Amino acid sequence: MVAVTLTDIATPAALVDEARMMRNIARMQSRMATHGVRLRPHVKTPKCIEVARRQQAAGACGVTVSTLKEAEEFFGGGFADVLYAVCIAPQKLDRVLALRRRGCALSILVDSVAAAQAVVDKGRAEQHAFDVMIEVDTDGHRSGVKPDDAILLDIGAVLHQGGATLKGVMTHAGSSYALNTPEALQAMAEQERGGCVRAAERLRTAGLPCLEVSVGSTPTALSARHLDGVTEVRAGVYVFFDLVMVNVGVCAMQDVALSVLTTVIGHQPDKGWAIVDAGWMAMSRDRGTQRQKVDYGYGAVCDANGRPLSELVMAEANQEHGIVARRDGTADPAIADGLPLGTQSRILPNHACATATQFGDYRVIAQDGAAHDIWRRFDGW
Amino acid sequence: MVAVTLTDIATPAALVDEARMMRNIARMQSRMATHGVRLRPHVKTPKCIEVARRQQAAGACGVTVSTLKEAEEFFGGGFADVLYAVCIAPQKLDRVLALRRRGCALSILVDSVAAAQAVVDKGRAEQHAFDVMIEVDTDGHRSGVKPDDAILLDIGAVLHQGGATLKGVMTHAGSSYALNTPEALQAMAEQERGGCVRAAERLRTAGLPCLEVSVGSTPTALSARHLDGVTEVRAGVYVFFDLVMVNVGVCAMQDVALSVLTTVIGHQPDKGWAIVDAGWMAMSRDRGTQRQKVDYGYGAVCDANGRPLSELVMAEANQEHGIVARRDGTADPAIADGLPLGTQSRILPNHACATATQFGDYRVIAQDGAAHDIWRRFDGW
Repeated sequence: MVAVTLTDIATPAALVDEARMMRNIARMQSRMATHGVRLRPHVKTPKCIEVARRQQAAGACGVTVSTLKEAEEFFGGGFADVLYAVCIAPQKLDRVLALRRRGCALSILVDSVAAAQAVVDKGRAEQHAFDVMIEVDTDGHRSGVKPDDAILLDIGAVLHQGGATLKGVMTHAGSSYALNTPEALQAMAEQERGGCVRAAERLRTAGLPCLEVSVGSTPTALSARHLDGVTEVRAGVYVFFDLVMVNVGVCAMQDVALSVLTTVIGHQPDKGWAIVDAGWMAMSRDRGTQRQKVDYGYGAVCDANGRPLSELVMAEANQEHGIVARRDGTADPAIADGLPLGTQSRILPNHACATATQFGDYRVIAQDGAAHDIWRRFDGW
Repeated sequence: MVAVTLTDIATPAALVDEARMMRNIARMQSRMATHGVRLRPHVKTPKCIEVARRQQAAGACGVTVSTLKEAEEFFGGGFADVLYAVCIAPQKLDRVLALRRRGCALSILVDSVAAAQAVVDKGRAEQHAFDVMIEVDTDGHRSGVKPDDAILLDIGAVLHQGGATLKGVMTHAGSSYALNTPEALQAMAEQERGGCVRAAERLRTAGLPCLEVSVGSTPTALSARHLDGVTEVRAGVYVFFDLVMVNVGVCAMQDVALSVLTTVIGHQPDKGWAIVDAGWMAMSRDRGTQRQKVDYGYGAVCDANGRPLSELVMAEANQEHGIVARRDGTADPAIADGLPLGTQSRILPNHACATATQFGDYRVIAQDGAAHDIWRRFDGW
C-alpha cells in the first residue's frame, strides 16, 4: 500500500512500531539461542500471521495458541506445528481431529485422568493417536498437576497405554507477572524450570515417554539463568511488550511496540482534563498496572511520534471517551494548550493482549513515522 | 436456521435470551410512553441490527451511536435517524458529511467553541448545514458544558450564526452507575433532567433554537419521576442488563439477557476451583461490580439453562481460563462433582457492553432453551 501519514488515519487505531517489534523478536530469539532451547511464540497476543512470520524468520519453531480458532487460522497461514496450550474440553476433540487430518501437527493438553481418558476414548473410536502434553502446575496460579503428584503418572499411563502419543510436559509460571525484581524473577524462572523438569523425570522413571519439556512466560523466559532439561520456551507478550512488563522490569517504555492512536475531542480545563476518542473500547478494561509500582491508569500518553509525555496518563475511561490527566492527580489548567482539539496522541497499553484484541487490524509504522502497511488480526473462538 | 441445542454450540459463545430481552425492551418503552418522551436506544451495547429492529418495532425513534462505524452500519441497516453522542473531532467531519449526503439524518455533538467553529468552518467550505447538539455536563463525570456556563451561549451563537442547525442539548448522567438506592437514583435523574432543561431554556432565552432536550442513562431513565421539558431519552444497556445494573438496583438477576456459555476444562479440587474455557477474553476485563455491594468477580455462574448457582462466581480470569469458585472464598472440595469435566455453564457478565464486544455474534436462545438464530454484531471504528 501507499504510505499514509498518521493524520490520515481514522482514530482510534492500533499502531505497531515495526522497528521496536523486530528488536523485541530478536532479543527473545537470541536469548533462547544462548540457552540452547527452541522458542515457540505464543501467538495469542498479536493473533496476526504477519507477526508470526517475522518470529519464524528469526528462528522460532511452530506456534503456541490459546484457542482452536487460532490453530485453524495459523494452520491456514502455513504454520503446521501448533501447541494448543489450554486444557482440552472433550467436546473440542472433533475440531482437533479435523485439523490433524488436514495435516496440522496439533498437540493438545490435559491435566486430569478424566480428560486423558476422554482423549483416549476418542482416539480409539476414531483410530487416531492424538499428540498430548500434560500440564504441570509449578506456581499454583491456574491449571495443571503438581510435579510430585501421583496423578501425573496416572495421566501419563492412561494416555500411553491408551494409544495416545504422550509428547511431554508443559508449564506456565503466570504468577511471574506479579513480580518486579530480577532476583524474584530468576527464582520464579528456576521454580518453573525445576518443577517441569522434575515432572518429566518422574514420567521417564516410570517408563513413560516424555520428549518435550516446555516452559514459559515472557518474564521468566527473559530472567532464567539457565534452562537445563528444557526443550522449548513459550512466550507471547514480548513481541509487543506493554506497561505491565515495564513495571515487571523486563523491558523499557521505549520497547513497547503497540500503541493506540487517538484524537483530542474536548477538555474540562478546570479539572486539567483532555478528552480523547479512545476509551476502554479501544484500550480494553485491563487495569493491569493498578497494583504495580507505577499505576498508568488506562495507559501512558505519548505524543503522535511516540515520545512519552511523562506527566500524563489516561486516568479514566468510558466506552469511547478517555480522560487524559496528570498521573499525580493535580490539574494542569493549561492542558488544552498542549493538547488542543484535534491533536493526535499515542497511548501505550497496560496489557498488549487485551488492547490488541479490541482492533481488527494493525497500522504498521516504519522508521519514517508513516504507516506503510495494514496487518489483519482476528479474534473469536 | 435449524435450532441447535446448547451442547452443539462451540464454547465460549455469547447467548441472548430473547424472551428476557423482549421484556426489557417492552419495559423501557412503556416507561418512556408513560413519561410522554421518545426513546432513542443507544446501540453501542448490542451493536446488532436485529436487536435495534426489535427496539424500533416496540416504538423507539432512531438510534444513538458511539462511533461513526455504528452510524454507518445502522444507516446501512435502515436506521436513518442517528445521533452520534460523542463530541466530534474535526477530522471526522468528512465521514459525517458523506453519511449525510447519502441521506442519513446524522446529528453530531460539540461541547466547545473550538469544535463549534470547526463544524461551522467545514459547513461553509462544503455549503452544508450540519445538525448539531450541544453536550451539557449535569454530573461532572465526563464531557459537556455546565448548564449555567456562559460558554453554552457562545457555542450556540457560533453554531447558529455560522449556519449550522442547532438542534438542541443532550446530557448523560453516567455517574448514576455508582448509585444504588431509589432515592439517590431519583435525585440523579432529576439533576440530569433539570440541568439539561435549564440549558435549553438559557439558549431559548438568548434567542437561539433548541428543539431537542435529550437525556439519559439506563439507571436514570428507569428512575425519573417525571421528565418535564425533555423530548427524548437515550439508554443502552437496559436491552441486556448486567450485574452492575443488578447492583444499581434497576433490574433483577433474572432480567439479564446476555450470558457467556462456557465448558468446564479442569479442576483444582484442593482449592475448590472448576476451570472453564471462558476467561477475560470472553468476559472482558470489566470488573464493574468490584466496588459495588456484591462483587461477582468476572461474572455470576448459572447452570446451562440459566438458573443461578448462587454460591459460585468466576473468581479469577486469565486470557482463556476462568476460575469458578465460591463467592465467599471458601473452597468447595466437591466442586468437580457438581461441575464435572465437559459441563456447560452460563456466566452472567458484569458489564454487557464490554462482554458483548468480545464476540462476533450472538446465539439467540428461545423459550425451549435451544438456539434458533445467530445475530451478527460488529465492532471497530
